[in-house]
Amino acid sequence: MSTDSPAVRTLADPDTPFAVVDADRARRNIARLRARADRLGVSLRPHVKTAKSLDLAALLHGGAPGPVTVSTLAEAEAFAGAGYDDITYAVGIEPRKLPRVVALLRRGVTLRVLLDSIEQAAFVAEAARAAGVAVPAQIEIDCDGHRGGLRPDAPELPALGRVLHDAGCLDGVLTHAGASYAAYTAGERREAARDERDAAVAAAGRLRAAGLPVATVSVGSTPTAHAADDLTGVTELRAGTYVFFDLVMAGLGVCALSDLALSVVVTVIGHRPEHGWILTDGGWMAMSRDRGTAAQPQDQGYGLVTDLSGTLVPGLVMTAASQEHGTLTARDGAALPELPIGTRLRVLPNHACATAAQHHGYHVVDNARATASAPAIEAYWPRVLGW
Amino acid sequence: MSTDSPAVRTLADPDTPFAVVDADRARRNIARLRARADRLGVSLRPHVKTAKSLDLAALLHGGAPGPVTVSTLAEAEAFAGAGYDDITYAVGIEPRKLPRVVALLRRGVTLRVLLDSIEQAAFVAEAARAAGVAVPAQIEIDCDGHRGGLRPDAPELPALGRVLHDAGCLDGVLTHAGASYAAYTAGERREAARDERDAAVAAAGRLRAAGLPVATVSVGSTPTAHAADDLTGVTELRAGTYVFFDLVMAGLGVCALSDLALSVVVTVIGHRPEHGWILTDGGWMAMSRDRGTAAQPQDQGYGLVTDLSGTLVPGLVMTAASQEHGTLTARDGAALPELPIGTRLRVLPNHACATAAQHHGYHVVDNARATASAPAIEAYWPRVLGW
Repeated sequence: MSTDSPAVRTLADPDTPFAVVDADRARRNIARLRARADRLGVSLRPHVKTAKSLDLAALLHGGAPGPVTVSTLAEAEAFAGAGYDDITYAVGIEPRKLPRVVALLRRGVTLRVLLDSIEQAAFVAEAARAAGVAVPAQIEIDCDGHRGGLRPDAPELPALGRVLHDAGCLDGVLTHAGASYAAYTAGERREAARDERDAAVAAAGRLRAAGLPVATVSVGSTPTAHAADDLTGVTELRAGTYVFFDLVMAGLGVCALSDLALSVVVTVIGHRPEHGWILTDGGWMAMSRDRGTAAQPQDQGYGLVTDLSGTLVPGLVMTAASQEHGTLTARDGAALPELPIGTRLRVLPNHACATAAQHHGYHVVDNARATASAPAIEAYWPRVLGW
Repeated sequence: MSTDSPAVRTLADPDTPFAVVDADRARRNIARLRARADRLGVSLRPHVKTAKSLDLAALLHGGAPGPVTVSTLAEAEAFAGAGYDDITYAVGIEPRKLPRVVALLRRGVTLRVLLDSIEQAAFVAEAARAAGVAVPAQIEIDCDGHRGGLRPDAPELPALGRVLHDAGCLDGVLTHAGASYAAYTAGERREAARDERDAAVAAAGRLRAAGLPVATVSVGSTPTAHAADDLTGVTELRAGTYVFFDLVMAGLGVCALSDLALSVVVTVIGHRPEHGWILTDGGWMAMSRDRGTAAQPQDQGYGLVTDLSGTLVPGLVMTAASQEHGTLTARDGAALPELPIGTRLRVLPNHACATAAQHHGYHVVDNARATASAPAIEAYWPRVLGW
């Protein structure tokens, strides 16, 4: 652990590498999707797997607990402990995780589980019966062949709904347009959002036609949430990465580079001018191995580089990583800047979820565009760790 | 955090995903390199950045503290706290890290720093003078154009050595054949080991010819350490991944699949037979985004799959990952096995350092080849975290 003293005050102070959140940008990103959801007439259930921070989450719903989505039971438990009582665990349920689910339900937390098979519905129903509590369950719907879920026209859908309903466990349907991460135009993303909506609404309609009540019709991904033009029939919107955004989202055109709220502060530790390299102490341990922009028209390596105040260093890209070393190179004929050993820089990540996961918390600044050479640190926000 | 009870006894018990170390295999891997180092007549300074575990480290030197290499000052501090007093911090030093270095030196720990420029030598010398302690420093030598360091024939090498020597800080030279990770035959790795040795010995020779004493001549990487046939002139050998090995090392031919001592236990959470997919709860959060075998002749995706006892499931590969989802597919015409929801599997990683870094510790088993369907858990070994 770094030995940050109470006197630490700016990004020049903590030992590098460390993660930084620009709270101004995060608030702006959060307000943007909140306004969209309001216009679309749906409630917003942010996915807290990106930041995994109770402090960041306090910005999501105006300071009070509100609906959230989680990717682990550790998140569910941490958020429940902080007063969040309306949580969706959006990873397919398996039997061994049900005791922790039941324990949260008994504490009064509405924790919804996700499933897409009769096999799962049977053990959820059995756990509900054995525990004497309803286990609210959502049926995962596959809108784009991306991962799990039943297609909305799957023959077994009504029977699955029936098993859940008979056990008092049917809450609704949920889908996620994972394929929208490859939608490069606003039009493609709008189409993906319509497909996502149509899949969820069609599935809900089939269940209702079978006489089964469907309370929740949940859709969302960061690209589709920012593109949807009509969510008729949908009750809630989910998104996660939108709080920080990242180079993948900027590459899609969902945000601007000036919206990116997460970065990693690194220090120059060496030069190899004969190779055109600047070496830093920020390797894949600090950035993750995520290379999400490798498949995009503009590959951003392991990240774009800014100075400590957040201003992009033109043409400077982190192009290679080992565990605790990063290699910066210049592209497009840009000159390699003269950065003495000890110079601090910030690296904007490919994928906020993956880079954030390499850290145990965030130093928080509130003025990414400030002219101060080293922005003041306002707070430290710990992350929820583990599973 | 998982709610493992004191009654947890086998790999069937902790909530998934979690990391497992097979202590039998680790001991065998450790003994193998120890025997090589003894035959080669050099001391062994394992790189503890792979496991970052004091418990695993206790196997490295027969139960007592011995020489180690670290990648972070957090590791240096944790190992110093456990009685390790002979440590090399093998990442280029920058000024802000010197106070923690000096603090360890004052506690009686011989902590060597690494550098490759007059700029760094000047501030190391100044810190030593200001603190009234010698700061032992090694000059990084570049043997293969892989990352940092001076070429052994660099004109500035003697002057750099002189600055360190005059400050009482010159310890020796260090090189790392990072390019050996692309050496696919034993002959290529033997050549890489010779180049690594020759670079270090030549650099030491130039310093000595300038009248400068060189105590340490340090070389090593897991591939070259297992291939070196003559280390005349070298004083110590470093390697890290060798304690666990991984699919990258197996793909090079440095080890067999049956040597891999690290895996991740995951649970089946869904099926998409129409796509040929089995879904698990082990995504990149559990495996890392490392795709080190993507550049090898046999791409192993995110990992090969075994049953809970460690026996490979023929043809089953983890081919895709999202944050908390893994996708398993069959290859080479293998049939997709029938694995009900709730089935536990183990995934062998591409890159042990990166996968281990996604976890806070290891459940330890001691019988990877046991016929027991769920091997007993013998211990839990925490990792050193942060920087």
